Amino acid sequence: MRDDLRKNFASDNVTPACPAVMQAIAEANTGNVPSYGHDDLSLALNQRFGDVFEAEVAVFPVTTGTAANSLALSAMVPPYGSVLCDQSAHINTEEGGAPEFFMQGAKLVGLPSPEGRMDPASLPPTLQLNRSKGVLAPPFTALSLTQATEWGTTYSCETIAALSESAHDHGLTVHMDGARLGNAIAHLECSPADTTWKAGIDVLSFGGTKAGAMAAEAIVFFLNDRTRPMVDTMTRRIKRGGHLWSKQRFLSAQLLALLHDGLWLGNCRHANAMCQRLRHGLYKHPAVNLPFATESNEIFAVLPEAQVKQLHSEGYAFYTYPTPQGVPGQLVRFVTSFYTRPEDVDALLESLIS
Amino acid sequence: MRDDLRKNFASDNVTPACPAVMQAIAEANTGNVPSYGHDDLSLALNQRFGDVFEAEVAVFPVTTGTAANSLALSAMVPPYGSVLCDQSAHINTEEGGAPEFFMQGAKLVGLPSPEGRMDPASLPPTLQLNRSKGVLAPPFTALSLTQATEWGTTYSCETIAALSESAHDHGLTVHMDGARLGNAIAHLECSPADTTWKAGIDVLSFGGTKAGAMAAEAIVFFLNDRTRPMVDTMTRRIKRGGHLWSKQRFLSAQLLALLHDGLWLGNCRHANAMCQRLRHGLYKHPAVNLPFATESNEIFAVLPEAQVKQLHSEGYAFYTYPTPQGVPGQLVRFVTSFYTRPEDVDALLESLIS
Amino acid sequence: MRDDLRKNFASDNVTPACPAVMQAIAEANTGNVPSYGHDDLSLALNQRFGDVFEAEVAVFPVTTGTAANSLALSAMVPPYGSVLCDQSAHINTEEGGAPEFFMQGAKLVGLPSPEGRMDPASLPPTLQLNRSKGVLAPPFTALSLTQATEWGTTYSCETIAALSESAHDHGLTVHMDGARLGNAIAHLECSPADTTWKAGIDVLSFGGTKAGAMAAEAIVFFLNDRTRPMVDTMTRRIKRGGHLWSKQRFLSAQLLALLHDGLWLGNCRHANAMCQRLRHGLYKHPAVNLPFATESNEIFAVLPEAQVKQLHSEGYAFYTYPTPQGVPGQLVRFVTSFYTRPEDVDALLESLIS
Amino acid sequence: MRDDLRKNFASDNVTPACPAVMQAIAEANTGNVPSYGHDDLSLALNQRFGDVFEAEVAVFPVTTGTAANSLALSAMVPPYGSVLCDQSAHINTEEGGAPEFFMQGAKLVGLPSPEGRMDPASLPPTLQLNRSKGVLAPPFTALSLTQATEWGTTYSCETIAALSESAHDHGLTVHMDGARLGNAIAHLECSPADTTWKAGIDVLSFGGTKAGAMAAEAIVFFLNDRTRPMVDTMTRRIKRGGHLWSKQRFLSAQLLALLHDGLWLGNCRHANAMCQRLRHGLYKHPAVNLPFATESNEIFAVLPEAQVKQLHSEGYAFYTYPTPQGVPGQLVRFVTSFYTRPEDVDALLESLIS
Repeated sequence: MRDDLRKNFASDNVTPACPAVMQAIAEANTGNVPSYGHDDLSLALNQRFGDVFEAEVAVFPVTTGTAANSLALSAMVPPYGSVLCDQSAHINTEEGGAPEFFMQGAKLVGLPSPEGRMDPASLPPTLQLNRSKGVLAPPFTALSLTQATEWGTTYSCETIAALSESAHDHGLTVHMDGARLGNAIAHLECSPADTTWKAGIDVLSFGGTKAGAMAAEAIVFFLNDRTRPMVDTMTRRIKRGGHLWSKQRFLSAQLLALLHDGLWLGNCRHANAMCQRLRHGLYKHPAVNLPFATESNEIFAVLPEAQVKQLHSEGYAFYTYPTPQGVPGQLVRFVTSFYTRPEDVDALLESLIS
Repeated sequence: MRDDLRKNFASDNVTPACPAVMQAIAEANTGNVPSYGHDDLSLALNQRFGDVFEAEVAVFPVTTGTAANSLALSAMVPPYGSVLCDQSAHINTEEGGAPEFFMQGAKLVGLPSPEGRMDPASLPPTLQLNRSKGVLAPPFTALSLTQATEWGTTYSCETIAALSESAHDHGLTVHMDGARLGNAIAHLECSPADTTWKAGIDVLSFGGTKAGAMAAEAIVFFLNDRTRPMVDTMTRRIKRGGHLWSKQRFLSAQLLALLHDGLWLGNCRHANAMCQRLRHGLYKHPAVNLPFATESNEIFAVLPEAQVKQLHSEGYAFYTYPTPQGVPGQLVRFVTSFYTRPEDVDALLESLIS
Repeated sequence: MRDDLRKNFASDNVTPACPAVMQAIAEANTGNVPSYGHDDLSLALNQRFGDVFEAEVAVFPVTTGTAANSLALSAMVPPYGSVLCDQSAHINTEEGGAPEFFMQGAKLVGLPSPEGRMDPASLPPTLQLNRSKGVLAPPFTALSLTQATEWGTTYSCETIAALSESAHDHGLTVHMDGARLGNAIAHLECSPADTTWKAGIDVLSFGGTKAGAMAAEAIVFFLNDRTRPMVDTMTRRIKRGGHLWSKQRFLSAQLLALLHDGLWLGNCRHANAMCQRLRHGLYKHPAVNLPFATESNEIFAVLPEAQVKQLHSEGYAFYTYPTPQGVPGQLVRFVTSFYTRPEDVDALLESLIS
Repeated sequence: MRDDLRKNFASDNVTPACPAVMQAIAEANTGNVPSYGHDDLSLALNQRFGDVFEAEVAVFPVTTGTAANSLALSAMVPPYGSVLCDQSAHINTEEGGAPEFFMQGAKLVGLPSPEGRMDPASLPPTLQLNRSKGVLAPPFTALSLTQATEWGTTYSCETIAALSESAHDHGLTVHMDGARLGNAIAHLECSPADTTWKAGIDVLSFGGTKAGAMAAEAIVFFLNDRTRPMVDTMTRRIKRGGHLWSKQRFLSAQLLALLHDGLWLGNCRHANAMCQRLRHGLYKHPAVNLPFATESNEIFAVLPEAQVKQLHSEGYAFYTYPTPQGVPGQLVRFVTSFYTRPEDVDALLESLIS
């Protein structure tokens, strides 16, 4: 293996697929079976997800997290509506306008969210102002929150419940971008149900790709009076987005494998542990500043510029961010994964210290 | 293997992936590599396609044929424009409105096309009428044709050239839906270049899934003054459609495998041969009517109703179509694939005869 | 007045506004009043339309017929749906793609309609085929018909009722493009209710501009269980389309004036009478062919080419159409209006004969 | 006249049309003339606007400011792009999502703008961050600024030039929402050219309705290499939006009247003077706080709650806004117009003082 293949901390999407997923794909590759989701593997998804989430659910597998988020929101928000989210939300800043495309031009409005978390207290005045504008402002019809957040933190189940309650009180439905849901659950040591529908989440984008799939995410509707009418429209929306795989068995097989016997959460637990190992190392470094809590598999650090250069010169890959004014150094992000080994973390730390 | 797994003639998308594709996916599954198409496999696509098509090309891999067609057209047609296609075109009748979605509401206008082929003579009057309406009618800005057609026939390279010339003369660009391009090439015994850019095609939806991939299609721009400005917008359009795989190596690996050493065309040649075998058998059947030439891997037949019932009762899967008025019997379609064996065809024929 | 101002038979939209409408606009021009439809004139619309149509209605005034049709359909059809209409429908051929734009890419599918009228018998097979395609074809969710039709004919109330019944039976709602509704009513000698909601129409685009307004159309919802949920979304859709006048009193005043004391129908009756006068004259002309019945204020005629040239050279304005193959001469259209005088018709006829 | 008709300070769009506009409409009401903008009045617009703005222009009249802004932006920004504007911009907060609708889902991103004015220094880092995100963030392709601003202030011509230069340097085009452009020009005592194209504006939404029209705005392209390709698409975009009046003479007549002999600027000068009269009165009031400079015809004031109640009880109409935390009282807005008389202002002040 080339040397650089273990030095990429840019994202958890630079990883390969985990062996159990590859095995499941290979096993699915047999015979002619009905297309467009009528195969046995696809038909088993609702039950498998229902078991894991202890709920009645309707599940729609898709290829990318952008598709999962955008298609979910398109069922929750009319074209003339708008979505309340946090300013740093992936849907708002990193998805190339896909949510607006799938929602047919509906608007995303970002709330300030230090550390990636919205404050439940900020919802009522925002919702009231929106209402008071009448026809002049697109009405908020959904709230979207990200678990774990974009800054590597997590919401407590209580905070999610408070946000959801406020949203439901004002007639909004609630979406969770769970691209790193497994990492949040591993950190919180709660059940999948606790941090989702039991905390008021109506629709979940379940992230599989970063947790070890090749390319597999799922839109999960927790069935209730708010979500049932959405479910009926989903296959049409997915087809219309070009996201209905004809050979869907290969998509479903990945999700079934991830959810089998806790593979998914095991992968995420490992990723989190590697991130804590990295944090411990960085923490000891006197010139390194860690602006946020590390509650998933992402860590943000302000490094001296020289250190950043050094790492790049050694072939390390990671993202850099605009550093807040007045802070010396460079804000960077390292992401660990199921595929990260302790020795990969240690090598990175060694390069930093040297 | 379950008995029904060889009795599904509903489509070439009910098939598994072919072994070489599975092998390529497994080989791609190693190490952390850059995401979003910056991996080595993805970077090799332009060259591989360029070699096969003997042209300078820009290639964008996507998951589904619907996505390939819709994204291609979205780069060719402004939202206030329209596309001329044949009445039976997949984009017009079978893609759940995806082309209109990606084109942001641009219109598809279907020309009559007995046997799935548009008549070059029908273009000039249609284009002139459109022009004469001025601002009242969305201007035609692209022509889309399907090779092989929806009725199992193929266009000759000369007819494509005549259609393209007419389109170019009126300022349109030309798109080919090549979901079954390999089958057409195998039938025509021409080169990939002959039936595409040498016949005036500007943009191709290259079909991989039906030819043996798990889920892999490609949007191929044949570089010229008309297509170069489109190319620059494509990655943004693909991301915005939720179609940019983070682990794109797994998508690219499939296409590279298909194009390696003629695997693709070999698969299609086999599928066509199985379809001819089926045709020969059906032809001998006195009560069976074959309305179209069989020039790819699809055959349409009018069967007696009893026969249709019989096949269904034995577990055979195939599509039925509204039968033209006055014709006795039921119009059905059988599709063969790389995965169809001679004995599968023979068993079907035997069931029919008995 | 310039000579050409009476020689324009191109459309009924080349006309000025009728005096009563101008008077109403002038009278509305007093004082500061609430904007965006909260003025007294706008608040009187529902009652006035309700009286004329003998029904409970919700009325939304807009500027153009294209806006009325497109906004109405946008409330009736989801983005992933489609509309069944006649092939020659204005929404399908003359509105620059506006319906697709407002419906966010939903599709229009045109039924054959000799003389502009769909055949109720053609609906059930079309709707069943659509249903059988499942997710592959956008589902028909609305039927749109045009009264009077694009070819100058009208639907009988019975035919409309048969079309509506078939549509309702399949879960579609029914829209009427009534750009020339007054002309149809004047011809049919029925009540406004007879040819609309009593025949099953759910939503009407009421045409005011061609009947004497400056620029005023109305979207009229006949309130029932199908339409009530649509009504709630309309003001937002109108605002989002840039169609909510701040000084809406000036729009509402026009509609109130048209509906006062039968002005609207009187104008249309006059237009129809002028059209019959023209027909009588044309009919006598041996070289003139009249392909359609004349049941409103439009007449289509096949004229010898020399005659067409002659009229153009004298400054007459009218539309020409592609003439069906094999028919000698040129298909043209003449449209009369409330503003056409008998002597204008006679002068035209004289030019033709000479 | 009813008493309340002079007590409405809610907006300058509650006003009637000014007499010269009504006169122009009446004069346009003669004879049949070509529709869809081919009449003589419409054909005179480019010249009239060109004279006033001392530039070569292409002008497209529409009914509402929302339509003008949204259609202008739709020609400047591709569906996958985004617009940089100030946080309080009307397009971002008060147009019901129309810009996103017409831009087909392109995104608006708001910059902080105390007093409604963006800081030229904030552009470069914002534009660089956007660029650095590559395909993940929709690229900024237009800058939109509002003159006069939403908070009653104006940009100096120098600031506009600095903003435009920065935008042009990064490949953006520049749009001005000039719903109250006349008020800004009257305040700045500059020429229409100075604050628009001479300061780098490419496309202007020219506001007529608030300056005395019935319903008339104009999209004005200052012709240059950036704008010429946009111009060609406009009539199609306008038709597709349902905004192409068939009897366009009535729209054009209003604009011609406003631009004749400085009527427009005279109306705005009067409105500004009334606003200054109001400011002088409010300023003297010890309990009234005026947070912003008053540089057009809008004034914002923080009033004691009791005063607000009192005014409402007397029938005064005006908008209230969320008051910044910690500030005692209620933030309100008063808008004056060409129609406001000195005695109307004085009566309002008297009610306040009493």
